[in-house]
Amino acid sequence: MRDVVVIGNGPGGSVAAMTARKHYKDANVTLVKREEKTVVPCSIPYVFNTLGDLDKNLFMPRYDEMGINVVVGEVEEIKREKKKVMLANGKELGYDKLLLATGSSSAKIPIEGSDLKNVFFVKKDYDYLSGFLKAVEGKKKIVIIGGGFIGVELGDEFCKRGMEVSIVELLPHCLQLVFDDDFAELGEQKLRESGIKLFTGRKVERIIGEDGEVRGVELDTGERLEADVVVIAVGVAKETKLAKGAGLDVDDRMGVKVDEYQRTSDGDIFAVGDCTFRVSFFTKKPSMLMLASISAYEARIAGANLFEQKRKNEGVIGTFSTGVGDLALSMSGLSERAAKEESIKYVVGVAEIPDKHPPSMPGMRRIKTKLLFNAETQEITGAQFAGSYVVGEIANIVAIMIQNRMKIDDVATAQIGTHPLLTAPPVFYHIAQAAEDAKTKL
Amino acid sequence: MRDVVVIGNGPGGSVAAMTARKHYKDANVTLVKREEKTVVPCSIPYVFNTLGDLDKNLFMPRYDEMGINVVVGEVEEIKREKKKVMLANGKELGYDKLLLATGSSSAKIPIEGSDLKNVFFVKKDYDYLSGFLKAVEGKKKIVIIGGGFIGVELGDEFCKRGMEVSIVELLPHCLQLVFDDDFAELGEQKLRESGIKLFTGRKVERIIGEDGEVRGVELDTGERLEADVVVIAVGVAKETKLAKGAGLDVDDRMGVKVDEYQRTSDGDIFAVGDCTFRVSFFTKKPSMLMLASISAYEARIAGANLFEQKRKNEGVIGTFSTGVGDLALSMSGLSERAAKEESIKYVVGVAEIPDKHPPSMPGMRRIKTKLLFNAETQEITGAQFAGSYVVGEIANIVAIMIQNRMKIDDVATAQIGTHPLLTAPPVFYHIAQAAEDAKTKL
Repeated sequence: MRDVVVIGNGPGGSVAAMTARKHYKDANVTLVKREEKTVVPCSIPYVFNTLGDLDKNLFMPRYDEMGINVVVGEVEEIKREKKKVMLANGKELGYDKLLLATGSSSAKIPIEGSDLKNVFFVKKDYDYLSGFLKAVEGKKKIVIIGGGFIGVELGDEFCKRGMEVSIVELLPHCLQLVFDDDFAELGEQKLRESGIKLFTGRKVERIIGEDGEVRGVELDTGERLEADVVVIAVGVAKETKLAKGAGLDVDDRMGVKVDEYQRTSDGDIFAVGDCTFRVSFFTKKPSMLMLASISAYEARIAGANLFEQKRKNEGVIGTFSTGVGDLALSMSGLSERAAKEESIKYVVGVAEIPDKHPPSMPGMRRIKTKLLFNAETQEITGAQFAGSYVVGEIANIVAIMIQNRMKIDDVATAQIGTHPLLTAPPVFYHIAQAAEDAKTKL
Repeated sequence: MRDVVVIGNGPGGSVAAMTARKHYKDANVTLVKREEKTVVPCSIPYVFNTLGDLDKNLFMPRYDEMGINVVVGEVEEIKREKKKVMLANGKELGYDKLLLATGSSSAKIPIEGSDLKNVFFVKKDYDYLSGFLKAVEGKKKIVIIGGGFIGVELGDEFCKRGMEVSIVELLPHCLQLVFDDDFAELGEQKLRESGIKLFTGRKVERIIGEDGEVRGVELDTGERLEADVVVIAVGVAKETKLAKGAGLDVDDRMGVKVDEYQRTSDGDIFAVGDCTFRVSFFTKKPSMLMLASISAYEARIAGANLFEQKRKNEGVIGTFSTGVGDLALSMSGLSERAAKEESIKYVVGVAEIPDKHPPSMPGMRRIKTKLLFNAETQEITGAQFAGSYVVGEIANIVAIMIQNRMKIDDVATAQIGTHPLLTAPPVFYHIAQAAEDAKTKL
């Protein structure tokens, strides 16, 4: 019997274990998770209003039905020479192949006052989040430090709960690390319409307290924002302690180094998920993208490769989406900002198209579309969408185009299906229209 | 000045004119349409309830703003030797390149009683549909002959209007020409839940009337269905009279023959849309698929190729979707039935996955997924989905996979994005899950 041990129960560890299970039916697959209850990481913001209950946000794959053994415990050490992992409770597990999916955690960033009562980080930890959820009860004013996806989603949720929400973001715009200004501004507009106050281009100087409890934050502009609760939604660190301890090749910031088969510097140990060193699909340069969908991608590769090299990682594309009120924003690949940073010459095509047809169809919403093509190779390199919730899956259409390196003419003539109730019209399909627009600018 | 003349204002003609306009800025582009008011063909069923008004279903691209000339008139003849088209009103238009998009029309099928009052066909004709819409007012019982997409969508609409609806379908299931039994049955179940009576596997023997007005239909089983209105939603014929008259190479049933650049047997005349001979992407054999999205696809190819060979038609894939009540069904490529008919060996993968995550997210619906892979080439060849309305665009993800001939491992590890409010979870993404399921069956 071949033993496979997976460390971690996030999207990376979970998918790796399930993939190994499917591909190697003779193997004994064991997943080690730290806590009894694992929260779904992506939906943590929704615990605060939409779900309303942390127990509605538990990650519970039926490992027993799948034939995956589960061990609850903290791995303290990997003994590579003996091919064993040592648990804090004294147990040990032997492995033929080991899969590291130790993830990432919110980094303690050095803000004065971050240790005050009712200052919270966004930790993927059941007990911590329980305390957070309880602490918010009856509170009125909340300040969120960080206007990335998590910050914005938390803001939207606390606002729906009826709280007075302020978001402080260092960059000129919320969501700016992912979206170009035009799309980020659409999101900001929705936040403001909901009554959320945005303090962009501002730095938090310190968190202010009284008798050990938080009272507000002070910005670098001298502004003071009152708060009963402060959330620090910035900073994330890759969890690589175990890998480092085992002497694997690790980059302190970028994570556990792997080859295109997800193998670490020890051929019997694989790494997937946030803890892993990633490279960009576009530039093959190191990438700091961290997304559950990327972790799952790596895990579907690693899980299949354990005893045989079946699948390769081509570098990460990055496809994001979010909802702010009734507006959804999505993107895949490179934004204009990212393309410029990489000195990639690009051409842009735009379109604004109804998501149903004819436009008089009840409930019609317009989808704002922007596509980026590499001006030299003519390959599609990015897309941004804003509109109804369907843009989440529309970004995935482009993601598939990107990984197939489709060129502008192929994108413009892509064969798609349409329906009056479900999609944009055939005559003005958003992706085709934006591609044709870009074509005329080449 | 180069003259381009486009005949037809359906999806094919319209997109061809717009594409020619964008690609050949120096050309003089003229579109000839038969009527002043063109209806949007795909949404004709929705005129009867959801839109409620034929004037809400008009196709009105801003041709004037685009610099496309519009001529209203009936083309009677193409004089190829003079490169002119002759209109019924005596006018003539010279062309350097001519584009035929004469479409299709409902075929008069030989049913006794089809000439009775209140028996209607589904004609893409404003005046005819106006009459149809008026005739339905105040009526109670309607029988629809044909349970394809149009028949089913009409049934759903008339039912929402409060009418008693019966659908008669020759085949064992509605929608069976496109979907496999399991998915067709999901649609039928929704129709029945709405109160629509389905008479499948039955043939209409004759339409019964009294004093020249319709009273019902008689089936081959002897059953008699009462009706105030009967709709014949079967039979469609390609409009190829003009092309034939001009001596172009035409197949009576399959349409105007074209090469992969959409050129007819006369290199200065192109054809697109329902009137055109099509071949399958999968088999390169003749295909009878007729969809607005396919017409638009051909038109984006032809419009760009008029004076230069820029784009090629790789054969049609066929991507369909529809909504029945709150259920949407979609598909792309080959069904199991179609694969069997072509003796293509295939393997199936299935999954049933929440369209939001965690599954406790309010409004969550499960998406039933079936993927088909060619067992020899391992290429993805088909998909069927049932669930919320987002399956319309999800089928397009697979359509892009199909045209890129992605293999099973690439489909299982496709890079996609996910979000709790917008999509299936990253860990159990429908397409990846179904692909991995198929992989284990290879």
